[in-house]
Amino acid sequence: MSVTFPQGFRASGVVSGLKVSGNKDFALVVSDGPEYCAAGVFTPNRAVAAPVVYSRNALELSGRTCRAVAINSGSANACTGEVGLAQAQETAVKVAEALGVDDVEQVLVCSTGKIGVRLPMETIYSAIKLASSSLDASEQSGADASEAICTTDSVPKRATFQGENFRIGAMVKGAGMIAPQMATMICLITTDASIDSTDLQSCLNRATDLSLNRIDSDGCMSTNDTVLLLANGAAKFKPSNDEFLLALTQVMKDLAAQIIADAEGASHEISIRVSNASSESAGVAVAREVSRSNLLKCALFGGDPNWGRVISSIGVVPAEVAPFNMSEVDVYMNGIMVCRGGEIGDDPKNVNLNSARRIEIMIDLKAGDTEVELLTNDLTYDYVNINAEYST
Amino acid sequence: MSVTFPQGFRASGVVSGLKVSGNKDFALVVSDGPEYCAAGVFTPNRAVAAPVVYSRNALELSGRTCRAVAINSGSANACTGEVGLAQAQETAVKVAEALGVDDVEQVLVCSTGKIGVRLPMETIYSAIKLASSSLDASEQSGADASEAICTTDSVPKRATFQGENFRIGAMVKGAGMIAPQMATMICLITTDASIDSTDLQSCLNRATDLSLNRIDSDGCMSTNDTVLLLANGAAKFKPSNDEFLLALTQVMKDLAAQIIADAEGASHEISIRVSNASSESAGVAVAREVSRSNLLKCALFGGDPNWGRVISSIGVVPAEVAPFNMSEVDVYMNGIMVCRGGEIGDDPKNVNLNSARRIEIMIDLKAGDTEVELLTNDLTYDYVNINAEYST
Repeated sequence: MSVTFPQGFRASGVVSGLKVSGNKDFALVVSDGPEYCAAGVFTPNRAVAAPVVYSRNALELSGRTCRAVAINSGSANACTGEVGLAQAQETAVKVAEALGVDDVEQVLVCSTGKIGVRLPMETIYSAIKLASSSLDASEQSGADASEAICTTDSVPKRATFQGENFRIGAMVKGAGMIAPQMATMICLITTDASIDSTDLQSCLNRATDLSLNRIDSDGCMSTNDTVLLLANGAAKFKPSNDEFLLALTQVMKDLAAQIIADAEGASHEISIRVSNASSESAGVAVAREVSRSNLLKCALFGGDPNWGRVISSIGVVPAEVAPFNMSEVDVYMNGIMVCRGGEIGDDPKNVNLNSARRIEIMIDLKAGDTEVELLTNDLTYDYVNINAEYST
Repeated sequence: MSVTFPQGFRASGVVSGLKVSGNKDFALVVSDGPEYCAAGVFTPNRAVAAPVVYSRNALELSGRTCRAVAINSGSANACTGEVGLAQAQETAVKVAEALGVDDVEQVLVCSTGKIGVRLPMETIYSAIKLASSSLDASEQSGADASEAICTTDSVPKRATFQGENFRIGAMVKGAGMIAPQMATMICLITTDASIDSTDLQSCLNRATDLSLNRIDSDGCMSTNDTVLLLANGAAKFKPSNDEFLLALTQVMKDLAAQIIADAEGASHEISIRVSNASSESAGVAVAREVSRSNLLKCALFGGDPNWGRVISSIGVVPAEVAPFNMSEVDVYMNGIMVCRGGEIGDDPKNVNLNSARRIEIMIDLKAGDTEVELLTNDLTYDYVNINAEYST
């Protein structure tokens, strides 16, 4: 179940020929209200793709309201200059026409796929026609939409929340190992809760930080990453911000875990838990530095509990970013304290890294009481193979 | 020719049994003055190894003077706590005794090798005895020292400068691909020029920035990285700072290039040249971000001129760090302008990445007139293999 799970949303996912494979490649999600509040988080990458520029602006100009989201795969419409921007705009115009939406700024667009490739507009027009005539609120249509946004994903990724008084539905695409075609992260979340757009945006910001920003396969946000949240109030219930944030975070963490699990070529998921950090940002900084160590991730792939590489990565984080005493840091791998107080701990030979797909690294900074977790993958031959063998 | 190339320096490189391989593993370099000015650059890593802590302090306490440097391979003496620190100190004490140096702080020590392994002090004592009785100013001894500091290097790395009035000699160890044993970068430079310690330190800082800090294989400074520069005035010539800096930078760039060329498992060296940057730091930030893209480095390994990944990396650098207009950026690969004004440029099929070991990427930011260059390597199966197959 996906974006059609909450009341008052319709969706479709169709084949239009954008993708060489002939798979579904165009999704449309429409809100039937009564409210149309929306929030978005967009890539901070300066090489930002045309659909992101368009949608970011539209969300502002519409006063943070949205009635429809159109997502195509098969082309990212990135690095396409002014022409690309005009085409993103044109896509929104045509969707608005097809749906009878007066204010084009209430239509947002996303694209994912190869970069530097222009949108084939005739195909886009047919896609819009087909998708807008296939809309319904069924579970199947939600599933179709979640397939249509995929590029290198091996499975569609969906999550839902069923509360006492409201629901959340969601779909995401993006594989943990970002493919050379810049498989981006596109995430669309729907809810029938009633929430004003300011609260909606702050909940989305926070939940994104705790979920999609806590997975780190390669360290880069791509040119197209987009997270959108639509709230239509159809459940006639206004949850407190805390209640909504809790539910939203749960859904987004579920999606994040699915992204990591689908990492191309990975043989292990790696959980990096930093405990007793002085603050959340300090803990995240340490976890992220560790998650980016190629040497650590190769070592773990090879079954080597190389705690030295964990320590060396921790040590890169400046003291003003994460205060702690290096000689107090303990490191655990799958429960064995391999480093005690910054020195050699228990025998690393006791660490078994191959009994499960998941590897647990725990770093105790003994500098406070905040705990954070970040997910990443190991670095394998398959990763090199996949990313060396594609052409632009 | 190496550290014995300038007048007034003696060296030795001996086998002491620290290394399982039975290769040379202990080097000693001694300055015979008349001056003893010294400068050092040390890893900023907070998980800093005992020899670095000792040497950093000694250099301060000695008023930036140095008469001898002892370097062992086979153990990094890292993550060894208070005991390790005491052993680094003890090593310096024993070297001072053997050489008749009154002030132990004028003896610096470096270590490289496996982490979390204590120095076997009996072996160290024999090494000191043997090395101090093998000292001479011959070219061979300089060569022996440069071998004795190697760990995963496939060749010793040396460079010299012959000026009209003074000389510089140098050796370095460190492979572009840092091995799991944390093969560190240890660099020792000698000169018979006469330079006071303040000028010496500022020249070393600047030359290091332009050379050893412009190579980026994995992005991390390890726990042991050390660069030391000894000036003994034996040539009785005081060059201007500019003249000395030029010569020193040339030598250190030579060493840096040798490190990159020796990268384990790499099939290509990649030069990332950023031109027309608004400032040096802006250019370096852009070059470094590009140099750390695993996806780019895999793509280049596979012969794929993936300019989209270059653009996506450039776009990660915040505007306040590097001001430029994304829509003005051109990217060249091996001379072909594959990206023009942030959009698709000439046909990337024209780019031949396999005709030479070196790949040239040029990024024109059109935001100023500063040019910087950074060197890195591609990411290959061999890299994964080497780093997955070792155990701590």
